[in-house]
Amino acid sequence: MELHVVIHGRKDLGEQLYTQLREAIESGRLAAGTRLPPSRLLAEQLGISRRTVSDTYALLTYDGLLIGKVGSGTFVNARGARALPRPSAPALASAAAIARWQNIVVPFLHPQLAGALRCEFIGGAISKNLFHQDDWRSCTQHALRQMARERGFYSQPEGLTALRDAIARYIAFARGVNCQADDLVVCSGAQQALDMIARVLIEPGCTVAMEDPGYTPARLLFVALGARVVGVPVDADGIQVERIPADARLIYVTPSHQFPLGMPMSLARREALLEAAHAQGALIIEDDYDCEFRYEGRPTDSLQSMDTRGVVAYVGTFSKTLLPELRIGYAVLPPAIRPAVIKAKQLTDWHTSTLPQWTLARFIAEGHLLKHIRRCHAVYASRRERILQRFAGDLATWFEIVPSTAGFHLAVLCKVPLNIALLVELAHKVEVGLYPLAPFFHDSPPRDGLMIGYGAIETLDIDPALDRVRDILEQIT
Amino acid sequence: MELHVVIHGRKDLGEQLYTQLREAIESGRLAAGTRLPPSRLLAEQLGISRRTVSDTYALLTYDGLLIGKVGSGTFVNARGARALPRPSAPALASAAAIARWQNIVVPFLHPQLAGALRCEFIGGAISKNLFHQDDWRSCTQHALRQMARERGFYSQPEGLTALRDAIARYIAFARGVNCQADDLVVCSGAQQALDMIARVLIEPGCTVAMEDPGYTPARLLFVALGARVVGVPVDADGIQVERIPADARLIYVTPSHQFPLGMPMSLARREALLEAAHAQGALIIEDDYDCEFRYEGRPTDSLQSMDTRGVVAYVGTFSKTLLPELRIGYAVLPPAIRPAVIKAKQLTDWHTSTLPQWTLARFIAEGHLLKHIRRCHAVYASRRERILQRFAGDLATWFEIVPSTAGFHLAVLCKVPLNIALLVELAHKVEVGLYPLAPFFHDSPPRDGLMIGYGAIETLDIDPALDRVRDILEQIT
Repeated sequence: MELHVVIHGRKDLGEQLYTQLREAIESGRLAAGTRLPPSRLLAEQLGISRRTVSDTYALLTYDGLLIGKVGSGTFVNARGARALPRPSAPALASAAAIARWQNIVVPFLHPQLAGALRCEFIGGAISKNLFHQDDWRSCTQHALRQMARERGFYSQPEGLTALRDAIARYIAFARGVNCQADDLVVCSGAQQALDMIARVLIEPGCTVAMEDPGYTPARLLFVALGARVVGVPVDADGIQVERIPADARLIYVTPSHQFPLGMPMSLARREALLEAAHAQGALIIEDDYDCEFRYEGRPTDSLQSMDTRGVVAYVGTFSKTLLPELRIGYAVLPPAIRPAVIKAKQLTDWHTSTLPQWTLARFIAEGHLLKHIRRCHAVYASRRERILQRFAGDLATWFEIVPSTAGFHLAVLCKVPLNIALLVELAHKVEVGLYPLAPFFHDSPPRDGLMIGYGAIETLDIDPALDRVRDILEQIT
Repeated sequence: MELHVVIHGRKDLGEQLYTQLREAIESGRLAAGTRLPPSRLLAEQLGISRRTVSDTYALLTYDGLLIGKVGSGTFVNARGARALPRPSAPALASAAAIARWQNIVVPFLHPQLAGALRCEFIGGAISKNLFHQDDWRSCTQHALRQMARERGFYSQPEGLTALRDAIARYIAFARGVNCQADDLVVCSGAQQALDMIARVLIEPGCTVAMEDPGYTPARLLFVALGARVVGVPVDADGIQVERIPADARLIYVTPSHQFPLGMPMSLARREALLEAAHAQGALIIEDDYDCEFRYEGRPTDSLQSMDTRGVVAYVGTFSKTLLPELRIGYAVLPPAIRPAVIKAKQLTDWHTSTLPQWTLARFIAEGHLLKHIRRCHAVYASRRERILQRFAGDLATWFEIVPSTAGFHLAVLCKVPLNIALLVELAHKVEVGLYPLAPFFHDSPPRDGLMIGYGAIETLDIDPALDRVRDILEQIT
């Protein structure tokens, strides 16, 4: 590893070196605190005398740009650096294509640590203190040893066999999903599973159907891939199958826990959906994002396990059960698309990082995942109970709850006209993060309401937070 | 976490449970060794009596499908399972799109551990024993502590600030790349960096230019995105700039170490390339995949550092310096495309897994990366020396070396007519992995020769392996 300096010819060597180092430091390219190579090494690298290098260092030290620390070397001084000028944006021929991506607005980005509110009802986030770091650490240790045994090659695009095997057993047990390791592809989160499947199915201009309201990041992705996305209205039984366009090639649904409203898809609708997909040659993506947490009633079958014709791709994730930042999800793919999806995965990022894969395989095999889900389930059940009681109690003046049986968010709809934007704004001022439902409606008329996530909020914070929400509601209505 | 069983109504409860469990075990959905929930828990979950459950378990045990182990529970017996029938492939409306992906052939896949030869001259692989697992482990420990401090939210799509900062300092120091943390996006390997950039620039039918011969996975990716890819011939100075099509919107090059031939791009060509790109509004991808290892001559400036107009996206990776399976790469992006690329990253997989990011940030900050590169450099230099001596010596009858100064592979061209396919086949039989150059040529007439990677082969194996190659050559010519 060498410091980047370019010397031309054999003349003015010291001056060339001085000018380049000075420029590198003043422009900020060499940041304050960077350690320069010992003069002997730099001299060797550049094929010039050591004396030339040490003289140059001395000169720069005199200028205040370098600083020598006895016994540890020569460093860039803090005073020297200034910000780099940015090159101006050129007129690229692809400017229109770039703008199409640049103008995408992803709603409800998770806040960074610094910007997070005390009481967050944001969806898709979890409580870190439920995650037993020690179990994960011991599995990571094991994974490091596994990794050490491999040669320094790329790994398989479809994911490690050990992990695919563990996931297949887990979802067969927990979700009745009909699969073996060879049907699975490991992805970097469910979002990448959607991307892989969508890439191999979508050609520009083709039609994609999805629930409306629905999961906006999936919609944005399909649109970015050039699809015409049609929002199909949902009712209490789920997607209105008869309103799916006949030319839809891809149908995206969330049958266990409709995103964002929460109701499960009825059995009759599931059957109708499978029938419709088969009749029109469409593939269904079943996004089973948080079905591990179920509170009432008996479980329903996954679409995948009802599918006898290979038209369902089942997508799952460990972002909800474990940690969003882990970025491990998976897809159970029918034979018609699996080889193509593996090619797409390979050309996209070759494969998912192996260390998290080995770690998770161990975590599942050791039974930590089931224990973890059981632990979270108990906590989420009590949070859900508190929220349901409040929305059935003092908050029932303004809201009604959409019935749901699973997951870790609820939806509530406004019973009376309400300025939701104002409510969200005032709640934010008292450290309560609220999120409106309306942005998830696309082609259907939006309904006013809130999505109440309870993965991230501490149980004891729920009542005080909802007290503040009630106080605001009383003020503004 | 519950076992997935669906009970309808209140009749024939035991029979419903028996039928479903039997089907789940016989179909292999519940794999041999899977532990069933205690009868009390399953009864509670299904809202049926405990007696019904334990009777059913007893019946299945009698059938030989379950096995009870005193003190530890009830398990699926090994005899029960048989393979699942696969659903037949339906006629999907997207069949043509799927076939386009499915038929992609990626050359030179890395072998799995089991299929690897003793002496591998494959490119892009590294020697695991050069990687000091202990340093990585201690940084992983540190990373786990960092992770524990965050809340359970998604992280930033562009990558952790700590890592972007560390990479910016590292490439400014080592490659003279003109950047700060805010110019960088962390990706899952260089392949994903290419994918992100290509996605925001390429619209179906637009022209992309790349070196020919060139890096096939990049070409396959551009084609899959719908581009018309034009291979531009290279000579001893690199890409022949005047032959780049005037309507190319994206130009992909490897200036430090042309892939696969190895020669660096001359200064004059670099200047001409920047000029041409600016004139036609094209963006250049500079893939600097293995430039950390330089053996001769003085370093050359990166295109990125010569670029005053913001037309270069610089792509780097830790697959070559550290480990391919780590899947961390990065792109230094000009302002014209960075916001769009961040959106693409977000819709593709939200962000790269945080644990490897924290680990690498620490690994760089602690100086382990520089030490590691220095260590590898010394080893690679001696391997390279051995290979050069052999190809300048006894193998010079058949091959000539393409001059190069960096990286960890060399290219050799045939001086006499040779049956390369036969050579590769016979070498494989004596545990020597050789890889022809021809598959990297696309629009230009292929030249016979070999790509000789020396990242994965042990130094002491080089001479015996090349002895075997010479013996084969003597036989077949």
